[in-house]
Amino acid sequence: MRLADKIKRMPFDSLKKPAIVLLSGGLDSATVLAKAIADGYAVTTLAFDYGQRHRIEIDAAQKISRVMGAQAHRVVAIDLRSLGGSALTGDLGVPKGRDMTHSEHEIPVTYVPARNTIFLSYALGCAEVLQARDIFIGVNALDYSGYPDCRPEYLSAFQAMANLATREGVEGRGVTIHAPLLHMTKAEIIRLGLSLGVDYGLTTSCYDPDAKGRPCGACDACQLRAKGFSEVAVPDPRVMRGE
Amino acid sequence: MRLADKIKRMPFDSLKKPAIVLLSGGLDSATVLAKAIADGYAVTTLAFDYGQRHRIEIDAAQKISRVMGAQAHRVVAIDLRSLGGSALTGDLGVPKGRDMTHSEHEIPVTYVPARNTIFLSYALGCAEVLQARDIFIGVNALDYSGYPDCRPEYLSAFQAMANLATREGVEGRGVTIHAPLLHMTKAEIIRLGLSLGVDYGLTTSCYDPDAKGRPCGACDACQLRAKGFSEVAVPDPRVMRGE
Repeated sequence: MRLADKIKRMPFDSLKKPAIVLLSGGLDSATVLAKAIADGYAVTTLAFDYGQRHRIEIDAAQKISRVMGAQAHRVVAIDLRSLGGSALTGDLGVPKGRDMTHSEHEIPVTYVPARNTIFLSYALGCAEVLQARDIFIGVNALDYSGYPDCRPEYLSAFQAMANLATREGVEGRGVTIHAPLLHMTKAEIIRLGLSLGVDYGLTTSCYDPDAKGRPCGACDACQLRAKGFSEVAVPDPRVMRGE
Repeated sequence: MRLADKIKRMPFDSLKKPAIVLLSGGLDSATVLAKAIADGYAVTTLAFDYGQRHRIEIDAAQKISRVMGAQAHRVVAIDLRSLGGSALTGDLGVPKGRDMTHSEHEIPVTYVPARNTIFLSYALGCAEVLQARDIFIGVNALDYSGYPDCRPEYLSAFQAMANLATREGVEGRGVTIHAPLLHMTKAEIIRLGLSLGVDYGLTTSCYDPDAKGRPCGACDACQLRAKGFSEVAVPDPRVMRGE
């Protein structure tokens, strides 16, 4: 039975623990959503409209949230463009076809300054209002493309800060930042997602899709995705559709 | 000589260290701006339009930034309303005329969930783009109205997180969160500001001003401001104007 069907058959359970899942419309965060739902959380998904080059991922997130059975979906419009400095918000070109072997200190131009910090801060505010004590984020440290805010020590530091920032923290009820993909390869993530019934045909990974949302096949994100499906020896449903 | 005049007479100095100052339009952050400029920083002020009840503080911040000689002013539109849960974004009433003696664990309804965390996260992104290593925020722990994200331990934790979040941090150049008012009373803040030439007639403190921006005189912020001016035995220029 697919996850969505399982979820639809479950009686509404108000005793479920609420959780926030950061949902980008990509492969990783869709897998995290499936994991949070499978673990029994009543999930509110949170997506950000931050002036991305491509709006396709905002639409993808909304559809993924609905199909996979989240309780609610919120889209928060935030202005990262005014901060400048990233290829993903239009200031620089997206690099194509480059060598995927990064040195530890090489940070790509697709890095958006403080993006995960800003996203997690909103999730923290949302968690506080919903009295949720669990926040899920789909970062991983192995296939992470060299972003500083995808490292385990960063997430630990964010959690420590979060527990001093909020009413919940002051009152002794801590917030936990869950990053279940942190130490997984892309292939392992795909295996987990498939075992939980994720339809990866709904997900979009490309940093630079065309006007119809079709992936470029050459950017870092496309290369990582292709490598992951290749290692699992399962066809990417988007490639099967001729995209 | 007033600070603004001093600043205007200074030759442009590209060797000045860049800094970000969070500017709300209130008394505290105006004082912090004066301090940062007096300490020789080339300041970019950052204000947020987050769906406040009153837009007067957004206009006040812009004017304060210009008059006091900041290099640049940015207004970032962010959506805190969708998080709900605070009197300052319209969900709850602003309490008036209450006893100002808070217990340490009493958090008022004017608290906006994760607000300082979200503001500081944007400042961090802005600092990274501008290659600034210094962020100033006007929180204080004595007259702080009971907000969890105004405590020294919170700020230390944010700084620790910030230094793991960014390119700057990864490359060993740390970010410092400056909170020069942290241990000052409102009276001490006003004394500092007056010594630096701050025109408090430009600042707005009220949580619930009328349509013309005039303070209510009864909310926590108005009471704290009145108490501060009273202790310094200097008239509040806004009260002198009959507001």
